[in-house]
Amino acid sequence: MDRRSFLTTAAVGGTAAATLAAPAIAQGNRTLTLVTSWGRGLAGVHDSAQFCADWITKLTDGQLTVDLKAAGELVGPFECFDAVTAGQADMYHAADYYFLGQHPGYAFFTSVPFGMTAEELTIWYYHMGGMELHDELGEIFGLKSFIAGNTGAQAGGWFRNRIESPDDFNGLKFRMPGLGGKSLGELGASVQNLPGAEVYQALASGAIDGTEWIGPWADEKAGFQEITKIYYTSGFHEPGAALSLATNRDVFESLSPAHQGVIESVAAYAHEWTLTLFLANNSAALQRLISSGVEVNVFPNTVWDAFGGAAKTVLDANLGDPLYKSIYDSYFNSMNTSSAWLGASSGEFVNQRNRVAAF
Amino acid sequence: MDRRSFLTTAAVGGTAAATLAAPAIAQGNRTLTLVTSWGRGLAGVHDSAQFCADWITKLTDGQLTVDLKAAGELVGPFECFDAVTAGQADMYHAADYYFLGQHPGYAFFTSVPFGMTAEELTIWYYHMGGMELHDELGEIFGLKSFIAGNTGAQAGGWFRNRIESPDDFNGLKFRMPGLGGKSLGELGASVQNLPGAEVYQALASGAIDGTEWIGPWADEKAGFQEITKIYYTSGFHEPGAALSLATNRDVFESLSPAHQGVIESVAAYAHEWTLTLFLANNSAALQRLISSGVEVNVFPNTVWDAFGGAAKTVLDANLGDPLYKSIYDSYFNSMNTSSAWLGASSGEFVNQRNRVAAF
Repeated sequence: MDRRSFLTTAAVGGTAAATLAAPAIAQGNRTLTLVTSWGRGLAGVHDSAQFCADWITKLTDGQLTVDLKAAGELVGPFECFDAVTAGQADMYHAADYYFLGQHPGYAFFTSVPFGMTAEELTIWYYHMGGMELHDELGEIFGLKSFIAGNTGAQAGGWFRNRIESPDDFNGLKFRMPGLGGKSLGELGASVQNLPGAEVYQALASGAIDGTEWIGPWADEKAGFQEITKIYYTSGFHEPGAALSLATNRDVFESLSPAHQGVIESVAAYAHEWTLTLFLANNSAALQRLISSGVEVNVFPNTVWDAFGGAAKTVLDANLGDPLYKSIYDSYFNSMNTSSAWLGASSGEFVNQRNRVAAF
Repeated sequence: MDRRSFLTTAAVGGTAAATLAAPAIAQGNRTLTLVTSWGRGLAGVHDSAQFCADWITKLTDGQLTVDLKAAGELVGPFECFDAVTAGQADMYHAADYYFLGQHPGYAFFTSVPFGMTAEELTIWYYHMGGMELHDELGEIFGLKSFIAGNTGAQAGGWFRNRIESPDDFNGLKFRMPGLGGKSLGELGASVQNLPGAEVYQALASGAIDGTEWIGPWADEKAGFQEITKIYYTSGFHEPGAALSLATNRDVFESLSPAHQGVIESVAAYAHEWTLTLFLANNSAALQRLISSGVEVNVFPNTVWDAFGGAAKTVLDANLGDPLYKSIYDSYFNSMNTSSAWLGASSGEFVNQRNRVAAF
């Protein structure tokens, strides 16, 4: 054995010894910094980011250790996209419609007005071209993105006065992100996109007249019922709002196929786990809100009609962008196709189940 | 360096060199045999089992290599439960309601008449006690089970003559597994539980008068439209039929926490991927069936009422078993709680979306 091969063997041997020692593969560990749009502990959405962090770490036995930095801990809530694109952080967990300024097509990977329910979104995402289009956007910005959470159909939100006609939105200062917010702008509202952690204070101070947030459970935790009692259940704006887990594309491509698969699989699990976390808690929260004096309303048909017209104007305004148009066409084709069977199967079933009421 | 430490280093160095060579961790690989209830290639359900096999293998970089044996390749379609319990195979992928003979509580982990949609099932499973109850059943039989696929709400099925009243089930020879089949038995039907691969021949030969299978896409692939043209869309019997991935419990407990997590995570991804595979294909398949002359029907309310009474009789018959009762109570409590918000949110939204028809 010459000196050179001895040194090589010794070096490799040293590595192997470490491999066999307690943190079995510690030398291969890599920390990935995950930034989010969520204040630490924000119900459901922070939980979803934490789920992703914990499960990626668990499934790789710590070879990928994900370090979650909540909004403000490394970058601000809406800066996470640019931070990951620039390589300042490795991953973000956020709602992609916060990044319409980067590309309007990102709206479809959270939710658009009069768009898909959470279930319909997964049909499109996994089998009708959605994932591939998300990836096409990611290539532009150096990201590898997967949907990784969902809030379900969001509530119409909190108002100081009841909404009785479309005119009631004229001049209303309202918090709503994404293309839903732009649609309210078409109705004359003054729309703001505040991060979750700042909404309560804005509503309490009168800086805004009303807000949507997520749904009964998350809204109750945010405490909006302390400020106003007028609540609307189904909204038009986010019928199944997905959350995304995006990894810097160079980082993603440097990972093994197994670890790339872990990120994809955990994101899918997070989608299902988060959606059902919200849905499991919303009914009981709504009952508590009602018990505490909250008035539950539905928007009248005239208002829904106005929402529809405004949403169409806003969504169609971007059709000059070819990638946006590809996403739009793929999305609505999938929605209109899949909703036909859903209506005839689970839709008809639920109607009969409610009517027969056997259990 | 003395001889002893040299040998140690060299030996360890040799292992490390192997570690760095092509099949990177081949020395740690373990093959898990996966048996199923599905004929090889059976649309959707075999795909779901193959997805589980491929993704577990991929996420563990082959350290767990899953070898799928379709129905009949190692054991028969309904023998997979006993094969895994006995250690003859390591895992099965099947519909747990095939195993009512082992315990009637397994019905709830596929689907029960007038029970949950796929979305409601996941709410229960991940957040309202379902997974823990599945595990309690698994402890009895030496299994570690996860839901790992779903067909969505199943179609009412194929009939030689239209169903115009509950009496039309009297004497009808019909294929339907699970508690749905037992419910039809209450209406006087002669019910058989045939594995998927045998249904076409039984219908073609007249051994049965009708059958349900899954939904338009899988039914079209099975070819039932070649035998009869009378089809019913929404059924009462399986409003969101889950598939299960069960591992022999001793095998599961011998795995590292990371590999246990891989199985759980892949099962969840398989649930979402499989459900959306069926849903993505059903609408187009239904259109093709209609174009080929298939007549699409819905059961009249009087028949739905009879289904409801029969289902209640059948489901309540097992309430003397304490574990069955625990599952029943947990299941219907979760369903009735979560369906309230779903109706007020996505249910109301879809109604308005259909009415406004903006896109």
